[in-house]
Order: sequence, then structure tokens, then C-alpha cells
Amino acid sequence: MSTDRQAVTVIGLGSMGSALAAALLDRGHPTTVWNRSASRAQPLVDKGARLAATPGEAIAASPLTIACVLDYDALHAVLDPVAGTLAGRTLVNLTSGSPEQAHEAVAWAGSHGADYLDGAIMTTPPGVGSPEMMFLYSGSPDVFEAHRPTLAALGDPLHLGTDPGLASLYDAALLGLMWATMTGWLHGTALVGAEQTPATAFTPVALRWLRAVAGFLTTYAPQVDAGRYPGDDATVDVQIAAIDHLIHAAAARGVDNALPELLKSTMERAKAAGHGSDSYASVIEVLRRPADAK
Amino acid sequence: MSTDRQAVTVIGLGSMGSALAAALLDRGHPTTVWNRSASRAQPLVDKGARLAATPGEAIAASPLTIACVLDYDALHAVLDPVAGTLAGRTLVNLTSGSPEQAHEAVAWAGSHGADYLDGAIMTTPPGVGSPEMMFLYSGSPDVFEAHRPTLAALGDPLHLGTDPGLASLYDAALLGLMWATMTGWLHGTALVGAEQTPATAFTPVALRWLRAVAGFLTTYAPQVDAGRYPGDDATVDVQIAAIDHLIHAAAARGVDNALPELLKSTMERAKAAGHGSDSYASVIEVLRRPADAK
Repeated sequence: MSTDRQAVTVIGLGSMGSALAAALLDRGHPTTVWNRSASRAQPLVDKGARLAATPGEAIAASPLTIACVLDYDALHAVLDPVAGTLAGRTLVNLTSGSPEQAHEAVAWAGSHGADYLDGAIMTTPPGVGSPEMMFLYSGSPDVFEAHRPTLAALGDPLHLGTDPGLASLYDAALLGLMWATMTGWLHGTALVGAEQTPATAFTPVALRWLRAVAGFLTTYAPQVDAGRYPGDDATVDVQIAAIDHLIHAAAARGVDNALPELLKSTMERAKAAGHGSDSYASVIEVLRRPADAK
Repeated sequence: MSTDRQAVTVIGLGSMGSALAAALLDRGHPTTVWNRSASRAQPLVDKGARLAATPGEAIAASPLTIACVLDYDALHAVLDPVAGTLAGRTLVNLTSGSPEQAHEAVAWAGSHGADYLDGAIMTTPPGVGSPEMMFLYSGSPDVFEAHRPTLAALGDPLHLGTDPGLASLYDAALLGLMWATMTGWLHGTALVGAEQTPATAFTPVALRWLRAVAGFLTTYAPQVDAGRYPGDDATVDVQIAAIDHLIHAAAARGVDNALPELLKSTMERAKAAGHGSDSYASVIEVLRRPADAK
């Protein structure tokens, strides 16, 4: 590989696509952009991007095209008419979608002679370009390795496996963890806020506590893989007793209890399944079996 | 203060109380212990603890008594008959309870001439003694400062404020954050596990993602205090669209969806309250107003 930066095309210039193109320009990649509404391209053109007149012209300009549009319908509306141009090139698709959509997309790209990677962006637009931020990819390891130096301009590229659906699956799983954590934090913030504790006073303690919780997850992960959950540190029974303190404290302060009540009922399902003396990791056994199968 | 370590009494030798006494012995504190069932004391006596015959003898042995029993009923059963012995001494109560119980306890201790701190232990018994682990205290700042060097033997002592209920309130809030985070992680682990990804492969990525999430909380905390939630990075509307990917992916793999469905409905309540274009921090507005007030 020469020291020249690879030419890259970015299709889709929403706030995320614009951040991707800007990060590539910052690293010196010759960058071609296209967007349905061309006016979105102006700030990037001012930074040195080339604005293509059509999606086909955009794809033809680079060996690698990165697509980041609203959804798969939008992706196909843009790419289907110009799919032939992708032959011999690589498409990295950072459009949010399902694992099933990723599987269809890799087949679609292959039928047009294109290499394909599916990806997921684990940051917000302001975080793009930071080597601390994770970009998840799945699909051919060879395609990933060929483009890793370019993808590193966007963030830290992680290859999850050959199954192209893995990036979308991890994305969903990680966002679920985020929403659960953020909602748990907001609930705690509301609880202490009812006693005039500011969020900015509670949050540093909460963040430090999250690091301890991270240690619990590290302990529990091998328990999940082994299917054995020794309750040495704290059992499901102990957690069920403790969560009543939270529910009472929240109720006494007029704070919504839907999340703690759900967490308690989930723990009680684990207890009913025989995991009362096991660690919290055993709760996964009931999450794998929906309460009401549909 | 002399270089001699302060004498300490520990009442209650469950797994947590035993860990507290062991940490004090490890730091060279003359330690007296008492437990309803004296046989629990033997490992500590082997380490150099003195076993008191009665709770009154235990309290009389030290200027500071740390209590860690099952609940406040157990606490009063032990201490009420010997409350007079506490006069001129300090009681640090690490028994789990509610803020209201802490308020009652400080009044009870004061009526017997004792200083009182309420506390919460933010680790499991194996973590006791580590300076990384948080021990939360609330009540008189003077009493806290007087005993801080001794309390530092147990973990990192944090004083939250004069209101004695704050330690219990933070404890409940932080445990709620822990249960939400652990359940979100288990849900994600179940989801990727349905595609043969081991928990030990997913978890390092999840932990790295949690550090990014911690950054979001740091951004959102001042928004909560200001009551303004600019949706610069990601709006509630965007999150509502994204969570459908999670719900569909989980449903397709037979994974329980109760937690994602609750999170989605909470987001939709925030949207209905006018926060669709705001950041996720705006969800606190609906958590402060229960869905069905009782």
C-alpha cells in the first residue's frame, strides 16, 4: 500500500454521514460525496470534498464506497439503479438495519460483483474520528483487512466475524444495554433529585459505581458461558430483598416504578425457575424464554 | 491522633460483617466482635479478634461500633436492650434500610447520647478492604471526619451530606442502576448468544461501550439540572426508531422483550410529553411523574 490515502466515496450526508466524510477528509483521504439533497454537501466541499452529480458517478470515483442513509429502503432506492457500477469495488454499509437485512445486502452486493461489509457506528456524530470510539464490522475478514487502514479514520474498527449480520446484532444488543443503563441512571437521578441532590452531584458517584458493576459483568460472563451461576457474592434472593428498598423509596417520592417493578418480576421469574441461590447472571435463563411466547 | 489504630467493635458477622471485621484486623485495628451465633466468630478470633459475650460488652470495648445485621428489626433487637452503653460512643450503621429508617435511627441514637452515621456498602464481601470500593456515609460531617481514618480500612469512604438518609437513598438509586445495567447486559448477551456468540466474547465489547455510555451520562447530567435537553447528539425520536431494531431482533430469536418494550414505552411517554426532539435525558421528566399514580 502506498502512503497515499485511499480514495473513498460517502453516500448519505445526514449528520452521521457528514461526520464520516469530514473524518476522512481530516485524514487526507480524497473524498467524493453524494446526497439526495446536494446542499448538505457544501460544508464538506468547503473542506475539499468532491461532490458527485449522481450516485453512479460517486461510486465510480473510489474503490471503496461507504453508505450511511436513513434505512435499507433509502439504501436500495439510491443503489439499485447503479448497482452495476459497484462491480469490482467494495461497499461498506453503515446504514442501521437488522441482521436479516445485512444478509440480504451481502447477497445483493455479491450478485453485482461487489465486496461488502456491514457495519455499526457506536458513537454519536461528534465522536466520529476518535480512535476511542468503536466501529463494528462483520463479513469477509479479507475485505475488512484490505480496508482497515481507511476505516481507522472513522474510529477504532472491530471485526466481529464472518457472519455479516453480527454488526447489526451487536448494535442492537449494545443499544439495549445503553437504554437500560441510561434509564436506570435517570431513575436513580430522579430518586436522589427528590431530596434536592443535583444530577451533577449524583452522576460522578454513579459513574464510579458503574466501574464496579463492570467488574461484576466480567465475573458473570464466564458463568453465562458455563451455564453455572455460583451465588458467592450476592444471590438472586438477596437482590429481590434489596429491590424492595428501591421500590419503597421511589414510591414514597412519587418517582415512577415501572422499571424497578419489571426488574423485580424478572428476578422473581429467575427465583421461580430455581435460581434463588444463584448469582444474578442466572437471570439470563429466563430472558432466553419469553414470559408469554407469541 | 496517635499512630495506634482505633479500637473498633463489629456487630453482626454475616458474610459482609465478617468481611468488615477481617479488613479492620488486616489494618491492625484492635477488633471486638459479636454475633447472635457465636460460631461465626471463630475465623475472626483466629485472626486476632476478641469475641464479646454480649452486645453490651462488645459496645463497651470500643469508642466506635459498626453494625451490619440483616435489617432494622434485627438491629433494634440487638441494640435496644443495651442502648445505654452507646452513650458517648459512635455507632456507624451499615445495615441496609430506607432513608426513613436512617432518620429514626439517628434520633434513637441521639436520645441515648450516641453519635451516629448511616452508611451503605457499595461492594460485595470480597471487595471489602479495597480502596477502590465506595462506602457511602451520611450524617454529621464532624463524626465522619473523626472516624474517617478507621472507615478507610473498609474501602473509600465518601460523605454524602448531613441528611442521614442520603446513604440509603444513594444505595437504592445505585442498586437500581446496577440491576438495570446488568439486566440490559444479560438481554444483549442472550441476543448475541442466540447466534452462538459467547458471553465472554460480547462482554469486552459491552464494557468498552459502557465507557462511551458513561460519557453520555456526563453530558446529560447538567442537562437534567438545567431542565433543558438539547438533542444535538441523538433525539428521543431517533432512539424510538432504533429500539424497534432491537425488539425485532430479539423477537426473531425467542428472547424475552419485556425490558426493551418497557424502555420503548417510556421513550414514547417522553415523546408524548413533547420531548421527541430532545436528548434522552428528557426521559427523566416522565420518570418523575408515574404513569399511574397510586
